[in-house]
Amino acid sequence: MLQKIPSLTQLVHELSRLPGVGPKTAQRLAYHLLRSPQEYVQSLRDALKAVKERIRDCPSCFAFTEEEDLCCFCADPGRTADSICVVEDPADIERIESSGVFRGRYHVLHGAISPLEGIRPEDLKIQALLDRLEAGPDGIRPVREVILALDADLEGDTTVLYLAKILKDMNIKTSRIAHGVPIGGDIDYIDYRTLGRAIENRVQV
Amino acid sequence: MLQKIPSLTQLVHELSRLPGVGPKTAQRLAYHLLRSPQEYVQSLRDALKAVKERIRDCPSCFAFTEEEDLCCFCADPGRTADSICVVEDPADIERIESSGVFRGRYHVLHGAISPLEGIRPEDLKIQALLDRLEAGPDGIRPVREVILALDADLEGDTTVLYLAKILKDMNIKTSRIAHGVPIGGDIDYIDYRTLGRAIENRVQV
Repeated sequence: MLQKIPSLTQLVHELSRLPGVGPKTAQRLAYHLLRSPQEYVQSLRDALKAVKERIRDCPSCFAFTEEEDLCCFCADPGRTADSICVVEDPADIERIESSGVFRGRYHVLHGAISPLEGIRPEDLKIQALLDRLEAGPDGIRPVREVILALDADLEGDTTVLYLAKILKDMNIKTSRIAHGVPIGGDIDYIDYRTLGRAIENRVQV
Repeated sequence: MLQKIPSLTQLVHELSRLPGVGPKTAQRLAYHLLRSPQEYVQSLRDALKAVKERIRDCPSCFAFTEEEDLCCFCADPGRTADSICVVEDPADIERIESSGVFRGRYHVLHGAISPLEGIRPEDLKIQALLDRLEAGPDGIRPVREVILALDADLEGDTTVLYLAKILKDMNIKTSRIAHGVPIGGDIDYIDYRTLGRAIENRVQV
């Protein structure tokens, strides 16, 4: 039947391009949207338009920002400017904020170094990060510490090694977030690499 | 962070109203859409618009149709007009078509009788079904058999009982699709109600 209703087929096709949405889910969503009130479909279309038109990268840290020039973190005088947390994606900021532990500024690389996918350091916002770390005219660095909160995969590790070398040469205190057993985690179910890292990084009690 | 980006918050809100999309999935989809090419978001918006603008109910069977007046089933002279398969939703037609067994026409009720949800027979396309079954000026009924392919739940059963009574009074051959063990099903894993129905409806071999 779908074949005979081109606009429904088209919507199923567009929806199935979303991550985690297979052909069956796309079909279910398309039927749902077809039967939804016009007002809902219109507000969904408006929201899609607004997101593409109104959200841009913060010129300082490259997190998302809307309308204003600087993002809410760079513009917030209540946050310490002398520590920067480096993340791969803007969505990672959300996670770190929900921990409530970090009160400094952020820097979004928009990816990680990946020789396999051809993503080189110059494809990321690394130069912009180094510019933020430069000493001012008074010879004093504005940033005291850089925390690398990158993914615990090959690309994240590569990027950590690359940045750690540069930041060490610049004489900036650099750390990366700890890897280990998750809170509530049962040691029986932890993979051996995580457990190995947890033992290496053991903390005196 | 989401709180500070109203248009992203809005998109997450709209997406989380879709069936099977929780807040986390909605957030992941919103970030994905934000990073997608403008062309994709535009084509998704166009597809949503087209679906609402161009698809309507077939005036005869109430399946979906686009542009043309009659749906592809009512307009197809290759399908027998003397048997009608009654379904709850247009999406059900897709499933029945994929079985390849039925070559007649359809009738979509757009729901099922549900005293709990306040859905009465007159809220469904039941009168339109009865009109299709009326004898012509020559006194001959255009429809020989009605197959009820409704869901195997309380609402479906209620609707089957309601329709069966009317159709019996009209002296029209009426059947409902069989319930039993699914093809490939392991009897160990079938619930007792399905198994009971399968035994009641046993077929001579």
